[in-house]
Amino acid sequence: MNKTKEKVNAAIVIIGNEILSGRTQDVNVVTISKWLNELGVKLEEVRVISDIENSIIKTVNELKKKFNYVFTTGGIGPTHDDITSKSISKAFNLSYGYHKEAYAILEKYYGKAKFNVGRKKMAMMPIKASLILNPSSGAPGFIVDNVYCLPGVPAILKSMLGGLKNKIKGGKKIFTKTISVQTVESEIAKPLEQVQQKFKNVDIGSYPFFRLGKIGVSIVIRSTDKKKIDDCYKEIVSFLKKKKIKMVGKK
Amino acid sequence: MNKTKEKVNAAIVIIGNEILSGRTQDVNVVTISKWLNELGVKLEEVRVISDIENSIIKTVNELKKKFNYVFTTGGIGPTHDDITSKSISKAFNLSYGYHKEAYAILEKYYGKAKFNVGRKKMAMMPIKASLILNPSSGAPGFIVDNVYCLPGVPAILKSMLGGLKNKIKGGKKIFTKTISVQTVESEIAKPLEQVQQKFKNVDIGSYPFFRLGKIGVSIVIRSTDKKKIDDCYKEIVSFLKKKKIKMVGKK
Repeated sequence: MNKTKEKVNAAIVIIGNEILSGRTQDVNVVTISKWLNELGVKLEEVRVISDIENSIIKTVNELKKKFNYVFTTGGIGPTHDDITSKSISKAFNLSYGYHKEAYAILEKYYGKAKFNVGRKKMAMMPIKASLILNPSSGAPGFIVDNVYCLPGVPAILKSMLGGLKNKIKGGKKIFTKTISVQTVESEIAKPLEQVQQKFKNVDIGSYPFFRLGKIGVSIVIRSTDKKKIDDCYKEIVSFLKKKKIKMVGKK
Repeated sequence: MNKTKEKVNAAIVIIGNEILSGRTQDVNVVTISKWLNELGVKLEEVRVISDIENSIIKTVNELKKKFNYVFTTGGIGPTHDDITSKSISKAFNLSYGYHKEAYAILEKYYGKAKFNVGRKKMAMMPIKASLILNPSSGAPGFIVDNVYCLPGVPAILKSMLGGLKNKIKGGKKIFTKTISVQTVESEIAKPLEQVQQKFKNVDIGSYPFFRLGKIGVSIVIRSTDKKKIDDCYKEIVSFLKKKKIKMVGKK
């Protein structure tokens, strides 16, 4: 039996002028990141880049070496600004053209009469890529090596992740515990740092919040080792009690 | 008189495990990008990276050479995971310590009695940095060369941008016009590409939307040349009319 890898990581490349211009709020990072957490894959970098061929090629070529998985979002639609498929073909030095299976899927989806030039363009990609099926709007995404190309429309992207699950080999699952407290960060900074120094393989994050007019801090503990999270959690709760800091939420 | 530069660009570095883990939805990119548009600065890249010193140093050193302005968000608070100020000092090879002016601001803000270790940490940064004043919660951000370090909490970040305006020298303002149509992308892909080929210095983006159960496409035209946007706009409206595609919004 294969041993589960300790650490498997990923990066996302968001290809989209509309995100950079501030016109569109990205929501795909949260979707993909939460889905990766469940699979034991840690998202370690995100890049948002323009719809420029050279940027896509350079970014993908750099990240595919650094990370176990790279996900791209956006730029696989039918219009002139959708250049992801062609750019990925160039990045991998692969022939770009009609992908037989994708062509058949799209022709069936639209019907021969309505299968126009724009729609046919969505069947153009590295001709030997594996497909990522699209249960909501026909046009598939595709996989080349460790690079997974998904669409930018959030609802469609979400619907395609389900079918991908078995293609991702995750590492140890990352567990997380959160303690929310009614205080400000500076009051807990010192004891929290001491706990962090004691637990080297646990990530402790401290995040101020302003909810319903109340100020507080969420302390987030993350690790692949459940036992260590529990030990770390106990130490934090213990110093919070000593300092009489009110806990307002745990999960 | 100085001539306005044709193009001034920027990048954002989001320093935050909480964004990568999917726990927190970033909203600062939209805020900063829209603010930059007004100043005639084009946001051309965003990176989200972990709270790891080496990643921060490497990323900032790479981007400060490539872009006119670099904005970092996050990691300037009082806790152990706030390592931006120290990392920026290292990136620029500058002394890291108490910044006199920042120390005085924070001591006044909290009062001598309540100015504890955690709060004092927020006065530690490159000691010769210029400050970015914080009208909402005291702790300032800072500037080193073309790198502007801002906090991660959206409301605080927003409140600090106002004071920064005069420090940014923008280029020509980027204008934008949007036409929303009731159709699918593949129906307009071909004529839209023809218009794009005719107008080389105009960015035409095509973005499908699903609003109130209705499918449509927003065509976004962006350029620093208002006249060209208008000409381009006319050509698009003309082919839409010819194809009898309903326009559902213009702005």
